[in-house]
Amino acid sequence: MADAGFDFLVVGPSPDLRYLTGFEGSMSERLTVLVLPASGRPSFVLPAFEAPRFVSFEDFAELVTWDESEDPFEALSQVIGVTKELVIGVNDTQWSRFLLGYQDVLPTARFEPASHVIGPLRERKRPEEITALREVNRLADLAFAELVATQLTGLTERRLSRTLSDILLDMGNDAVGFATVASGPHSASPHHEMGDRVIGEGEALLFDFGGRHQGYFADVTRTVVVGRLPGGFEEVYRIVQAAQQAAVEAVRPGIMAGSIDRVARGIIMEAGYGHAFTHRVGHGVGLEVHEPPYLTGDSTTILEPGMTFSVEPGIYLPGRFGVRIEDTVLVTENGGERLNTCTRELLVVS
Amino acid sequence: MADAGFDFLVVGPSPDLRYLTGFEGSMSERLTVLVLPASGRPSFVLPAFEAPRFVSFEDFAELVTWDESEDPFEALSQVIGVTKELVIGVNDTQWSRFLLGYQDVLPTARFEPASHVIGPLRERKRPEEITALREVNRLADLAFAELVATQLTGLTERRLSRTLSDILLDMGNDAVGFATVASGPHSASPHHEMGDRVIGEGEALLFDFGGRHQGYFADVTRTVVVGRLPGGFEEVYRIVQAAQQAAVEAVRPGIMAGSIDRVARGIIMEAGYGHAFTHRVGHGVGLEVHEPPYLTGDSTTILEPGMTFSVEPGIYLPGRFGVRIEDTVLVTENGGERLNTCTRELLVVS
Repeated sequence: MADAGFDFLVVGPSPDLRYLTGFEGSMSERLTVLVLPASGRPSFVLPAFEAPRFVSFEDFAELVTWDESEDPFEALSQVIGVTKELVIGVNDTQWSRFLLGYQDVLPTARFEPASHVIGPLRERKRPEEITALREVNRLADLAFAELVATQLTGLTERRLSRTLSDILLDMGNDAVGFATVASGPHSASPHHEMGDRVIGEGEALLFDFGGRHQGYFADVTRTVVVGRLPGGFEEVYRIVQAAQQAAVEAVRPGIMAGSIDRVARGIIMEAGYGHAFTHRVGHGVGLEVHEPPYLTGDSTTILEPGMTFSVEPGIYLPGRFGVRIEDTVLVTENGGERLNTCTRELLVVS
Repeated sequence: MADAGFDFLVVGPSPDLRYLTGFEGSMSERLTVLVLPASGRPSFVLPAFEAPRFVSFEDFAELVTWDESEDPFEALSQVIGVTKELVIGVNDTQWSRFLLGYQDVLPTARFEPASHVIGPLRERKRPEEITALREVNRLADLAFAELVATQLTGLTERRLSRTLSDILLDMGNDAVGFATVASGPHSASPHHEMGDRVIGEGEALLFDFGGRHQGYFADVTRTVVVGRLPGGFEEVYRIVQAAQQAAVEAVRPGIMAGSIDRVARGIIMEAGYGHAFTHRVGHGVGLEVHEPPYLTGDSTTILEPGMTFSVEPGIYLPGRFGVRIEDTVLVTENGGERLNTCTRELLVVS
């Protein structure tokens, strides 16, 4: 923090808070923040009635409570003090309403994203984080195997999503991260919102899913075919498969993140589908489903051992189908290691 | 907007966005915002690859897209323009990372919570919103009836929460809002995080739950007893029941929100448990589970027909048990109308 020029971090309920304290909490309209000074004892500013839940934090932090009728921003400004110009980091996902409140009571302070300090730490996973990521991805792989063994035709996307969610929980995940099901032409929308479309024969069926385990998310995508192949599907599938394979093989420490995108994109462009690969090749995965590093083509982030990110090229043909194949990949000293092992072969399900 | 002195609202994926456009979206690291000027045509600033999902908005808004390798804040500043001092409202739950980005590219603008404009609109529900709230609360009531008819002892809190979630979905909700189960001494923590505690005989069992239907949340709490009454439970239950009844009966248009809190608190204090009712009596419920009006004792908000909020006094006895009874209540011309009708009588389940 001191090296980065920060005097305080103000961290609300978030994956950042979980990373720092083991407690994630959930955002609400009631101000609850860890105030972490560059040196000295931290404080937790929190609603008085929640104090019993924070007793275990008294070992390392002061508990500063505010009553339902008090101004929480006053409590915060007293903890921080307004005596000088300060640089204060606020965790990225904290609500803007709170930041505006801080800026009101601390008008001489400069506010910056706390991710400037916390982001680089979170990018390189510690051994116990890698263990959790291995486990949650293993559970996702098992869930996929069970899912495709069930009868899928005739169900709605929403119903099938619920089945997938149930399987993810049955496998031992703490929670469902997400369980997106996109059928037929819906698979051509990279971020499809599910509805009551019924899954039919001769369609692509895309699953983008993962559970959460000990705070860590899995993120895996597979595209299968129901009954028989739609026209042109196999060619597109083989291109995406080759692009994903080459991109994973390109992963190694010391290279720029952008090069992974360019490897996948090169293969897809060469095959004539460059226009149909509309998003970056991947993103970090950990305590959040999307987190740094982001693997855009122009990223100059240098890959380091312990980074975990998705590699997920796709080709989207509006009105027809889309294909995406995604694994979460760990950077090791020796290269990229897939954390997902469920089949990437072309699968025809019923 | 013009009356409140706002030149623009910048609204990201949120209940506010849903209220304004029918589309809620979900927050991510990729900037996606509706830019609403006080007069003139709105714009949507969004990732280029998401554009197909926004085609239906072209009737009322310009689509301004940015590519994965472009700076989205530049796109936003070009839409807004930097020619003069502006007042810009940002929706309350938008991530602070984005607000810091806006402040960087629009250094002469003043930023304020958009809730100053949107909040008062959302507080008074329109007829179709009330219809949705009636329905989602009806489904919650049905779910409670089915839940307490099942065998509860021997299950863990987490397992029972999953059962309740399944029932909420089976009833026809679009999603589970929340399904909190707090057993035994855990019921004494108003915001309990569930774990693997097994539900046993002679314990309090508190359910705080609701589904989501057409965007609107239910919020209802019931406290039951498993097998037989813990010592002192019935007395506490009767006090909470009386406080909740009196508070609901006190609801009518034209009075201050704070008076509802004071009615419930007065009864609980009179009975000697004032110290154990540690939170406000309620909060607005609608597109968010917690939203204005907040019913703290000092609230001067005047109740108006169409407002919907929880009335949920509680008594929490650490190490023993807690009791909370909560209904969502609609303000009508004639007084308060409970949207929940599942029994508030003392229920002993097995």
